[in-house]
Amino acid sequence: MAHDGFRGVFPYLVSPIDERGRVKDAVLTHLVDDLLGAGVHGLTPLGSTGEFAYLNREQRHRIVEVVVQATRRRVPVVAGVAATTIADAVEQVKAYDALGVDGILAILEAYFPLAEDGVVDYFTAVANATALPVVLYTNPQFQRSDLTLPAIERLARVENIRYLKDASSDTGRLLSIINAVGDRMCVFSASAHIPACVMLIGGVGWMAGPACVVPRQSVQLYNLCRAGKWEEAMRLQRSLWRINRVFARYNLAACIKGGLELQGYEVGAPLPPQTPLSETARAEIKGVLADLGALDHHPSPITGVEAS
Amino acid sequence: MAHDGFRGVFPYLVSPIDERGRVKDAVLTHLVDDLLGAGVHGLTPLGSTGEFAYLNREQRHRIVEVVVQATRRRVPVVAGVAATTIADAVEQVKAYDALGVDGILAILEAYFPLAEDGVVDYFTAVANATALPVVLYTNPQFQRSDLTLPAIERLARVENIRYLKDASSDTGRLLSIINAVGDRMCVFSASAHIPACVMLIGGVGWMAGPACVVPRQSVQLYNLCRAGKWEEAMRLQRSLWRINRVFARYNLAACIKGGLELQGYEVGAPLPPQTPLSETARAEIKGVLADLGALDHHPSPITGVEAS
Amino acid sequence: MAHDGFRGVFPYLVSPIDERGRVKDAVLTHLVDDLLGAGVHGLTPLGSTGEFAYLNREQRHRIVEVVVQATRRRVPVVAGVAATTIADAVEQVKAYDALGVDGILAILEAYFPLAEDGVVDYFTAVANATALPVVLYTNPQFQRSDLTLPAIERLARVENIRYLKDASSDTGRLLSIINAVGDRMCVFSASAHIPACVMLIGGVGWMAGPACVVPRQSVQLYNLCRAGKWEEAMRLQRSLWRINRVFARYNLAACIKGGLELQGYEVGAPLPPQTPLSETARAEIKGVLADLGALDHHPSPITGVEAS
Amino acid sequence: MAHDGFRGVFPYLVSPIDERGRVKDAVLTHLVDDLLGAGVHGLTPLGSTGEFAYLNREQRHRIVEVVVQATRRRVPVVAGVAATTIADAVEQVKAYDALGVDGILAILEAYFPLAEDGVVDYFTAVANATALPVVLYTNPQFQRSDLTLPAIERLARVENIRYLKDASSDTGRLLSIINAVGDRMCVFSASAHIPACVMLIGGVGWMAGPACVVPRQSVQLYNLCRAGKWEEAMRLQRSLWRINRVFARYNLAACIKGGLELQGYEVGAPLPPQTPLSETARAEIKGVLADLGALDHHPSPITGVEAS
Repeated sequence: MAHDGFRGVFPYLVSPIDERGRVKDAVLTHLVDDLLGAGVHGLTPLGSTGEFAYLNREQRHRIVEVVVQATRRRVPVVAGVAATTIADAVEQVKAYDALGVDGILAILEAYFPLAEDGVVDYFTAVANATALPVVLYTNPQFQRSDLTLPAIERLARVENIRYLKDASSDTGRLLSIINAVGDRMCVFSASAHIPACVMLIGGVGWMAGPACVVPRQSVQLYNLCRAGKWEEAMRLQRSLWRINRVFARYNLAACIKGGLELQGYEVGAPLPPQTPLSETARAEIKGVLADLGALDHHPSPITGVEAS
Repeated sequence: MAHDGFRGVFPYLVSPIDERGRVKDAVLTHLVDDLLGAGVHGLTPLGSTGEFAYLNREQRHRIVEVVVQATRRRVPVVAGVAATTIADAVEQVKAYDALGVDGILAILEAYFPLAEDGVVDYFTAVANATALPVVLYTNPQFQRSDLTLPAIERLARVENIRYLKDASSDTGRLLSIINAVGDRMCVFSASAHIPACVMLIGGVGWMAGPACVVPRQSVQLYNLCRAGKWEEAMRLQRSLWRINRVFARYNLAACIKGGLELQGYEVGAPLPPQTPLSETARAEIKGVLADLGALDHHPSPITGVEAS
Repeated sequence: MAHDGFRGVFPYLVSPIDERGRVKDAVLTHLVDDLLGAGVHGLTPLGSTGEFAYLNREQRHRIVEVVVQATRRRVPVVAGVAATTIADAVEQVKAYDALGVDGILAILEAYFPLAEDGVVDYFTAVANATALPVVLYTNPQFQRSDLTLPAIERLARVENIRYLKDASSDTGRLLSIINAVGDRMCVFSASAHIPACVMLIGGVGWMAGPACVVPRQSVQLYNLCRAGKWEEAMRLQRSLWRINRVFARYNLAACIKGGLELQGYEVGAPLPPQTPLSETARAEIKGVLADLGALDHHPSPITGVEAS
Repeated sequence: MAHDGFRGVFPYLVSPIDERGRVKDAVLTHLVDDLLGAGVHGLTPLGSTGEFAYLNREQRHRIVEVVVQATRRRVPVVAGVAATTIADAVEQVKAYDALGVDGILAILEAYFPLAEDGVVDYFTAVANATALPVVLYTNPQFQRSDLTLPAIERLARVENIRYLKDASSDTGRLLSIINAVGDRMCVFSASAHIPACVMLIGGVGWMAGPACVVPRQSVQLYNLCRAGKWEEAMRLQRSLWRINRVFARYNLAACIKGGLELQGYEVGAPLPPQTPLSETARAEIKGVLADLGALDHHPSPITGVEAS
């Protein structure tokens, strides 16, 4: 098995869906190919940017299937599993495992607030349903039950729970996690943190939507951090940060999809009733991408693949 | 068609699911029969208490089917429809309409925050997918995109959007809504409001989980309010309020299911990772139900109706 | 002592301050006279509408002094005491007691979150510093440490803590309080509740800013509620509610001061950096006051009193 | 003028007050001497840790006076000014300026929410009242009106507003601020950020309570960051971070005062109704300080300075 350790830049893939609700296989395949060409270290379908909360069972399954096939084991594929019940989560884990993913990004959704024991039960059940490594996902802003540090410490004892991705904006929380369970668990940044800071404090990379539209620059930033060239890394980080901040002001899925459309990928709009980017937002994103040299990167012509 | 106007007490039905994930038809049928025997004016499957957020498509469909069959058109059945996308919501509406429900309780779920236009689009699409009357559901606590007063005013212009149920605890908000659209829309209370107060300001009833365990008392309270016997209504309301407050302290589905179990209905626990009532909570609920005379009401056999 | 029980309409008085920071005695005296002429049952200087948080020690002292003198014991004066430390609160209580007030409205301010024991210590110390009756003030929106029901139950045992005014918008919370300590403590509504609803559930009146600009109508509403004429009360309540809702959208002090200016009282603007009403807000408030017949009530000509 | 640029470690001084409300001059003088002996680069009386929100006018004035006298111009003294009104803030600025401070830390308090124009008015008035450099303080957690990026951009144009201290935990916000106004304004970290991260992204130091109890270690961390020795800095940062996190769990003033008491400074407890440290918290803080070698540092007599 080639993928004994996840690290580096894992773009959060968008989910291109056509008007009749079908996955646009060719577009997604093309995007995967180009991201791998840009040097990214892994791929994450069905993260928040991938609109997991807006897709049905069949759409989610197809997204994972297409990404696994397009990747051809060149990098690890870590698929998002999100559910309110253990039963649903376990079903997803087994399905994606069977499709050949290399890891599971475990997301808990909730309607009623959930006590810590229930939170631990959920993630433990997800991990027990597979032999694959599991990434805990924590996002205080979009989920009703956050992972506390004590819950993380309990979960770190589960054999295959080996990573954590934190989508808060509280970088100090990550350092507290690393202080507590850093010997057993590796930490990924999300787009609300400054990736260079997370690398400085001991992180191993980032899983984030913006890496879809600036993959080369993201890989370059990762390499500078790994080489300990912090001042040089910060110069690049400072300019890349603009894109994180623009995206934070609008619907994230609309931003990444809109940015990819500007680059020539026909990924479409986010699923209704989410609305596409306004003209203002589109112009602003276009400006930032242009400044970063990220509009020159046109997708190579599509070869023979066709939409389902 | 008998149900030209919804008003009165609409219990939020629980969803009894067995360990293999199947709907417990007999238990649900029995509960429906007993609630009708107690004089309730309508039934609402798949509200929050009905754990709509924890059931899959097949389970939700079966719940509605069983309730419609058990009700035998004696009172209106208003089924909850909850989704993040318009496509999913419309599919649910059409399915439940085909099963024979009398109205739709429309709930919007969201992962990313949604602008007002998107909110209006969603509810309009739900209403356009059916000829049945639609109840707008608004719950600032559990949903990411609340219905503002301007959005409600826009939606009141849609022909079949004729009711609103507000699950905030801000009764003043209801009066503002009644002031603005009271000529076109009727307002239901939820369990976080004091029902007698909502009746006083012009509401037409309540849709709430507690009515599952105190149906006779709820109907009696409704009748006192309708008769303008406000002091007498308040005496009953004051004692009934204790149950709303106990339930507010714990997972609502666990409370109603736990209360029904105490009354002899084998509805089971909420779906994992939600946890059943703790012993403390169960004892507290038992005490309140006993004080209200709601433990004497064993589920079978059904005798004569005796609403005030 | 005439004032053995507070009940009825207690306007939250504004604090008119001139550009040099001096209390405008004549304006305040005039307002007090007119409010008493309109039949209000008590007066509350230094509530939130009275900008207690924006006045210095000398200004607050003078406000209380002027109100006590202008009232001439015709109705009870209940002065707001607000502080972060027990020492400061006790000093204020003793000063206002010496000036001749009839009760203390006790407000806790906090910078760091405060544990329940500290909260109980504060209010107990306030009560122990005087023989006057004390009104607990609770406002979850504007204060960092709210009064929980257990804290209220502990404080209800203090001899002279005999009233509570709750400025949340959660009327159900008031019913829970009345259920728990209603035999020892009387409850006042604030402007975020519907006063008629609070009266229905057992309240004794309201302390609120809007009563400054619609005193006659407020007294009429109170009388209808007391007489059990609930439907008639609700007709009046429904029209009066518009003013509460307009005020909720803007800075409350700016609204009441702006409304009084429209009625001819030269109370001035709220203290900077608070800003006066915008033209839009002023027009909106003018419209509502006109509809309520509250612009016809011009202040009678000022007699001989002059500003300090 | 020696202090043309603030940078480095500025401990947030505690305010030692005796039981009769008087400033404990000798204790405060001693603490100042020892901190200067440990090599700190500046001192900040009347920050949040200094309980500005709990002191009266006379106490605050005396605190500043004692600190200025004890410092004897060896490092800059930047005094906190906090008020709800412009009039009060300006009075404080002028008083502290007359006492000989070197800069003003400007804090806005609010009771009612404040529009951006009011926020800008306040800070502009503070800056216009003095020729000293002004540090903007922003703390979304403890203040009702936060400084938005557009407001900061407007304020950066005021000549003597030249620093900003951000007490959120959102380090990305600091990078956005540096990207926007970094050429005109220098940024300090607070205790909720990881200081080494803020230094990496371009910060100039930190103003924080923990530096009172670990001054030598804080100076050493600053020097490592300045020298670009990031890996070494992170090793120290990782152990120091434990103290920030312990303090975040309790009342911050109680923690710093408690820690200083453990080191032999008789600074007393926070002002009532704030409560002193519980035994559990005291033991936990004692453990962390012991691990950091911060209990060996007895307050007297002062020996040779030994910063790295």
